[in-house]
Amino acid sequence: MLNMQERLKLQHFLTIKKLKNDQVEELIKRAEYFKAGGAVPEYAQPIYAVNMFFENSTRTHCSFEMAERKLGLQTIPFDPVASSVKKGETLYDTLLALNSIGVNLAVIRHSQNEYYKELIDLDETQKLNMGIVNAGDGSGQHPSQCLLDMMTIHEQFGHFKGLKIAIIGDLTNSRVARSDMRLLRQLGAKLYFSGPTCWYSSEFTEFGSYGKVDDLLPQMDVVILLRVQHERHKQEIGFSPTEYHTEYGLTRKRYTHMKKNAIIMHPGPINRGVELASELVESSRSRFAKQMQNGVFMRMAMIEAVINGRGLGGKQ
Amino acid sequence: MLNMQERLKLQHFLTIKKLKNDQVEELIKRAEYFKAGGAVPEYAQPIYAVNMFFENSTRTHCSFEMAERKLGLQTIPFDPVASSVKKGETLYDTLLALNSIGVNLAVIRHSQNEYYKELIDLDETQKLNMGIVNAGDGSGQHPSQCLLDMMTIHEQFGHFKGLKIAIIGDLTNSRVARSDMRLLRQLGAKLYFSGPTCWYSSEFTEFGSYGKVDDLLPQMDVVILLRVQHERHKQEIGFSPTEYHTEYGLTRKRYTHMKKNAIIMHPGPINRGVELASELVESSRSRFAKQMQNGVFMRMAMIEAVINGRGLGGKQ
Amino acid sequence: MLNMQERLKLQHFLTIKKLKNDQVEELIKRAEYFKAGGAVPEYAQPIYAVNMFFENSTRTHCSFEMAERKLGLQTIPFDPVASSVKKGETLYDTLLALNSIGVNLAVIRHSQNEYYKELIDLDETQKLNMGIVNAGDGSGQHPSQCLLDMMTIHEQFGHFKGLKIAIIGDLTNSRVARSDMRLLRQLGAKLYFSGPTCWYSSEFTEFGSYGKVDDLLPQMDVVILLRVQHERHKQEIGFSPTEYHTEYGLTRKRYTHMKKNAIIMHPGPINRGVELASELVESSRSRFAKQMQNGVFMRMAMIEAVINGRGLGGKQ
Repeated sequence: MLNMQERLKLQHFLTIKKLKNDQVEELIKRAEYFKAGGAVPEYAQPIYAVNMFFENSTRTHCSFEMAERKLGLQTIPFDPVASSVKKGETLYDTLLALNSIGVNLAVIRHSQNEYYKELIDLDETQKLNMGIVNAGDGSGQHPSQCLLDMMTIHEQFGHFKGLKIAIIGDLTNSRVARSDMRLLRQLGAKLYFSGPTCWYSSEFTEFGSYGKVDDLLPQMDVVILLRVQHERHKQEIGFSPTEYHTEYGLTRKRYTHMKKNAIIMHPGPINRGVELASELVESSRSRFAKQMQNGVFMRMAMIEAVINGRGLGGKQ
Repeated sequence: MLNMQERLKLQHFLTIKKLKNDQVEELIKRAEYFKAGGAVPEYAQPIYAVNMFFENSTRTHCSFEMAERKLGLQTIPFDPVASSVKKGETLYDTLLALNSIGVNLAVIRHSQNEYYKELIDLDETQKLNMGIVNAGDGSGQHPSQCLLDMMTIHEQFGHFKGLKIAIIGDLTNSRVARSDMRLLRQLGAKLYFSGPTCWYSSEFTEFGSYGKVDDLLPQMDVVILLRVQHERHKQEIGFSPTEYHTEYGLTRKRYTHMKKNAIIMHPGPINRGVELASELVESSRSRFAKQMQNGVFMRMAMIEAVINGRGLGGKQ
Repeated sequence: MLNMQERLKLQHFLTIKKLKNDQVEELIKRAEYFKAGGAVPEYAQPIYAVNMFFENSTRTHCSFEMAERKLGLQTIPFDPVASSVKKGETLYDTLLALNSIGVNLAVIRHSQNEYYKELIDLDETQKLNMGIVNAGDGSGQHPSQCLLDMMTIHEQFGHFKGLKIAIIGDLTNSRVARSDMRLLRQLGAKLYFSGPTCWYSSEFTEFGSYGKVDDLLPQMDVVILLRVQHERHKQEIGFSPTEYHTEYGLTRKRYTHMKKNAIIMHPGPINRGVELASELVESSRSRFAKQMQNGVFMRMAMIEAVINGRGLGGKQ
């Protein structure tokens, strides 16, 4: 295990774009250490965190909360609905308030792509002194989901190089897809895409190639199913849930054609009977529950990197 | 006091229907032990609970929260309004997520009768591994309110056998009434019902008989007043609050006709001036505040039964 | 430092109207002690607090939460939107429930002026046994904001006597203004008012005199800018945000005319570009962040006064 001096140190955890492969591996190793019941460092002073979820969420929100508890942080409740944001306060000013009050870390989910840019740019000239962990920005990035996906794949195969991985579904609107495809390619996996062609565009060709579900599935090591996000695209998708399932979904029949050790992943929440057949959610190939389990430990590793980057842990 | 081996052990706490009399007495004894300041067991590992209230509640929600704190549990915040349930996720899938994240116990209030049936049936063949404590299901059951009522009656009289107990009001829609009448009859009390006859039906005759308020009140040891739930039955009740009070309510005059040691109970929240005169809420016969006080300790006993039933406490 | 016996003891903390100057100084001294990292007393038993914010708030709500955490209290979550208040329960009955459940202290923000009067009057004859800390009542008082303002001014100047202080803006609807002007006059400061004359009325003449912004600013030691509360006065104010800024706001130009050691304060949230130019929010004269920082420590001192007043800390 790495010692304190060698560990990843970050001012913020905003995107996976600048992560190097050895940093990803370090995060996975640290998350696996926590998962194996490894002891959590004791900090010299209390560390206060706030979870600011401006979009609905259960698993990511509760997972960060659990990660913070397990790390021994104090979490200050924040309800965006009852906040001064309703009075027109900017996100920066709300963070300035929380920072002044003594909050050290903010975990933020926000519908605006790269919402954090204005916070960080300001950070240099202004007074904001807190770490920001991005829990999802619009259709941008979702670093913690991406890294827990990496951990789950690593847990199964022990490596990434040469793995064949398909991402199927709403590529255009999925921040999970954007984060995953970038990091998986960087780690040496071979990527494929499928699903409705209206969701596939030329911007994805640099990461992988498009194929038909029935052609791809029997060759894949990992299949990542994306949620049909009814709440995001209000315009008509042009097919019913049943039609989606028949055409692009993981049906029971398609499941039987998969490779021996192949696994299925889904960021959740699942539309049962759409992205995959309901009875496959807890099937032997499914890593759905495992992903959520791993998420807590990966988020511990991510938060710890920011704690270390900001010297919040105090002397040891 | 019972030792660990003899104590009640349950996988879930969903209904009072299968509780035996000695189990009820054991729960009361354990709640009284906590109320008397008895020490709480130390658990070998942290136990994580989540309170999922899909219906508005103050006293039950806060009471469970307090019970969990006093037992030393960690509670993970859950806001149904900001949850993935809004994205159409099923209750089972939300619980699967929370369970994967590390939550051991879910306290649930839900508007659907027996919402837990599908969760428990699935439990056998599928992966859900968490204890569920029912905090009220539709017009079904309200086990914790029922048991705190038993504790409050037991505190006053020391027994149930032969006590004359009237339940007055909206019998049809009250889960408290349904739970109380079943358990009180089983424990040997003699039951009477009153209130608007539109809320009385033949299904209650197996538990007790209907009488007029003025005929019943002078003979009762315990009077349980039910809330007129304006928010549940939207259709016209056919009488004003004042008319209800005059006809069926506990007026100051009726209060003076009660037996010497008789007590008044109400599950709350009270409509002052409707179910009972406002100045009687904190009168000497009223056990309203006592019920809420006892509720915390009874909920501690109930949660503990599930902790023990699932072996969550670890070795001691 | 004062010892336990000499410290301020209050049953409730509702208004600054009855505070004597030495009590204000004592609170400031105690808050400064906490700010300097002074140890917090250990209480003989857990103390349970609930924060009931019936109006939107970020800084005051989170600040009280932080103050409670730092004092070692247990905070029980309370969501007014999901509470029984929605079923028509009175505030008194909700508090009676929380009190019965074991809550010792309630921090309340409410839109009704002097909402606490009926709770306190009842307290004498009835059963409510909990301390109430007023976190803002309608257009009435805002004791904690007022006292953190005092602390911030004291931090800068070391005294109040003879300081020239201007309060600018919506005097009519601001509970901060009402609290501040009363206490500042009592402490010996010389008060001035400015802003739209529609918000100035004869009731303020006993505290200070009205002047034009450009006449007042160069003479002031402290300038307190009030938020233009768009959410409170729905009727047309009669000027646009830009017009307000030009006419009454702290522009960059006006800033340069201020006295050498003069400071700017604002209760927040700020309308940037309205009450003051956006780039002045974190300028060297601005005590905006400092006010929020001091707020946590002042609230600790206030809550402690109620803990001591009610003997909740136990023997030491």
